[in-house]
Amino acid sequence: MKHFIDIADLERHDLESLLDEADGFVEILERPIPKVPALRGKTVTTAFFEPSTRTRLSFERAAKALSADTMTFAPGTSSLSKGESLKDTVQTLEAMGSDLLVVRHRAVGAARRVSEWTSVPVVNGGDGAHQHPTQALLDALTIRRRFGKVEGLHVAIVGDIRHSRVARSDVLAFSALGARVTLVAPRTLLPVVTDGWPVAVCASLDEVLGEVDVVYLLRVQMERGGATVFPSLPEYVSRFGMTRQRFAALRPEAIVMHPGPMNRGVEIANEVADDPRALVLEQVAMGVAVRMAVLFRLLGGELDE
Amino acid sequence: MKHFIDIADLERHDLESLLDEADGFVEILERPIPKVPALRGKTVTTAFFEPSTRTRLSFERAAKALSADTMTFAPGTSSLSKGESLKDTVQTLEAMGSDLLVVRHRAVGAARRVSEWTSVPVVNGGDGAHQHPTQALLDALTIRRRFGKVEGLHVAIVGDIRHSRVARSDVLAFSALGARVTLVAPRTLLPVVTDGWPVAVCASLDEVLGEVDVVYLLRVQMERGGATVFPSLPEYVSRFGMTRQRFAALRPEAIVMHPGPMNRGVEIANEVADDPRALVLEQVAMGVAVRMAVLFRLLGGELDE
Amino acid sequence: MKHFIDIADLERHDLESLLDEADGFVEILERPIPKVPALRGKTVTTAFFEPSTRTRLSFERAAKALSADTMTFAPGTSSLSKGESLKDTVQTLEAMGSDLLVVRHRAVGAARRVSEWTSVPVVNGGDGAHQHPTQALLDALTIRRRFGKVEGLHVAIVGDIRHSRVARSDVLAFSALGARVTLVAPRTLLPVVTDGWPVAVCASLDEVLGEVDVVYLLRVQMERGGATVFPSLPEYVSRFGMTRQRFAALRPEAIVMHPGPMNRGVEIANEVADDPRALVLEQVAMGVAVRMAVLFRLLGGELDE
Repeated sequence: MKHFIDIADLERHDLESLLDEADGFVEILERPIPKVPALRGKTVTTAFFEPSTRTRLSFERAAKALSADTMTFAPGTSSLSKGESLKDTVQTLEAMGSDLLVVRHRAVGAARRVSEWTSVPVVNGGDGAHQHPTQALLDALTIRRRFGKVEGLHVAIVGDIRHSRVARSDVLAFSALGARVTLVAPRTLLPVVTDGWPVAVCASLDEVLGEVDVVYLLRVQMERGGATVFPSLPEYVSRFGMTRQRFAALRPEAIVMHPGPMNRGVEIANEVADDPRALVLEQVAMGVAVRMAVLFRLLGGELDE
Repeated sequence: MKHFIDIADLERHDLESLLDEADGFVEILERPIPKVPALRGKTVTTAFFEPSTRTRLSFERAAKALSADTMTFAPGTSSLSKGESLKDTVQTLEAMGSDLLVVRHRAVGAARRVSEWTSVPVVNGGDGAHQHPTQALLDALTIRRRFGKVEGLHVAIVGDIRHSRVARSDVLAFSALGARVTLVAPRTLLPVVTDGWPVAVCASLDEVLGEVDVVYLLRVQMERGGATVFPSLPEYVSRFGMTRQRFAALRPEAIVMHPGPMNRGVEIANEVADDPRALVLEQVAMGVAVRMAVLFRLLGGELDE
Repeated sequence: MKHFIDIADLERHDLESLLDEADGFVEILERPIPKVPALRGKTVTTAFFEPSTRTRLSFERAAKALSADTMTFAPGTSSLSKGESLKDTVQTLEAMGSDLLVVRHRAVGAARRVSEWTSVPVVNGGDGAHQHPTQALLDALTIRRRFGKVEGLHVAIVGDIRHSRVARSDVLAFSALGARVTLVAPRTLLPVVTDGWPVAVCASLDEVLGEVDVVYLLRVQMERGGATVFPSLPEYVSRFGMTRQRFAALRPEAIVMHPGPMNRGVEIANEVADDPRALVLEQVAMGVAVRMAVLFRLLGGELDE
């Protein structure tokens, strides 16, 4: 594994091996001093051409827990405003001593292109509506730690599948690990083509409530002006929101997940968000562990403590 | 002491004990290598929902001098713009591995609320016009190191008391430590009610010049449009500015303090700001030491060097 | 050497000694763990009053490779917007524990003024169109490592000399080290007075192509509205752009340099930028090494590994 760009690049065995490694880092993160010298002297650079505090901080936390240094490239105040090309920017960051680049960019395929331009490992921190592979890893880890396995579980992914890199990544990861995935969304929020996807599609959340182990709620991108893809927020809530009533209809061991940030009262009711069976914060915590596993794997660190 | 939110939560003994600890850190900061491993592996997160480079850098410097890692949450580029609740944001920061949160927010009571939502210690970095308790600690330390005590000193706090969390914190801390405090301000800049405060009030700076040990000048919040609370800047200067003439009327050992940033030529004359008896930069230096003491106390660090 | 403000402050011997030191740091940066404890516990502060991600990150990378802590002062969100003076800001940064200040400011002479106000070493990270001395050092190091010497080489600096602190610094450094420098620019982009400069001036790039060892291309400051100083971009490219044709006319061992960020297709053709004889990324890499040398020299670190 040279880069970490797309879940589709990995075999089931690779995914499971990364999850195993991440399990070990969860344990390290629970120690009184949650830090190992594995990547001392390495520099992990986050180059986020699209703003995202949450994901960036998670990667930087993972890097620091491995004793790496971090470099934060924030295009807002950068040469990009002077018209520098993406290629020149990332090659400059490499020449400054980056040992690994985490790239987020609004263009589909950006991280892959960057990996062709640099000699250091590249991690995809999100490219357009395409992939967000560490999110899929952390979601899979959260599920596996809760149920002891992913194989055989039934996961419903609910909401704006069409514009979601989280959904695209999760579908691939959950399926590869043996879960059964059902997409729940109105036609307007489904991808134009889902023929090749290993999924079922269902237009009604209520239909699947009683049979799923995991309900994965996607964020309603309110800033995109949802009105164009569904009539109104109340309409969305009434059909796809995880209300208290729907939560009560879930099987008792079923869990609710969300990539954050949540719109409380829209895709998830306030009371559901605070329920112990909503694992949103557990997902955040697992995010640090899986990113440690990815950084460690790509940078060939050693864990001789 | 689980959190550090409000000076009113502390007994005199607590304040003195923190100042004693801070004295020790002043000494450490004067060493050739001003750094101790006390908080190695801990992560101190600054979550400043209201911008403040000065206070944030001071906390981060304190954290690093204790060998902690830092995480900087800058809402400008964050999910907050996507409508995430304060509760979800701070719980997310905790789930990412924050061992302590320093919170600044424009809403009175914000840090207290945050402390109810998280399991990690919370330090109030300023909440509206309410409290800024580490500022009070650093001011008290500056005075105590200069005079050898706070007890029995007479401190005048001058200016916009009404809108000042610094004033509210200082009044409590100085009084608790045995100082006599006089508020000097026009009626329009006094709090609506000061009945319960352990202070005297005086509308004329000139009246108290000859009897105070400390003149604490508050910043004129020019960006708030001062014109609504006093007629004009020249009017303010003529009545409440620490001019050269007024400085000359002080007792010879009296000192001048200011929380920064100063408006030279407004609340403080240029020459006074540069006088050795203006301890503005000493206050800044003490800020790092008291923040080290607070972080160290809350995170239970050990100083076995 | 107390500060590092202006190439004119240094003798040839000083420059060469810094380059020798930087050579040593290049070697350290090539190690598996490119980090030495030389400045452990020191705090290097970047105070960039004019935005520049590239230069700031390079200084911070250099500081971290020496195990120093970094403090980043970003005026965008700072007290400066509240009207604090430059003097008070930098004295505040010093009082917070900065052991060295790297200052970038749009005003000519800013770094020099700062050095008069603080007791810690000051490095000029660029002051207006005046000086950018670490850029000159890294350019000189790049040339010296390529040719084994600077003495006797012929360097053409091409483009907007008038507004370029890079050009002003490079002219002084290259000349001091024994190179012959020719400025290539239209009259409108030359300084008003170049009489005292140890340079030749030439209005035609084509005239010097066959005799130079180094072509140093300056960035066209498109954001300044180039139209006022030359008729059009195509006109600029046709007279001063390093096109493929011009590149082919260079001597076979000649190199092309550029301070970045490049305007591909303007001052440098796409194919030239990607040619191994264009040392733009090598310059970036050398930037970290020379900044390590400067920080190390000014902070009196020790290299007892």
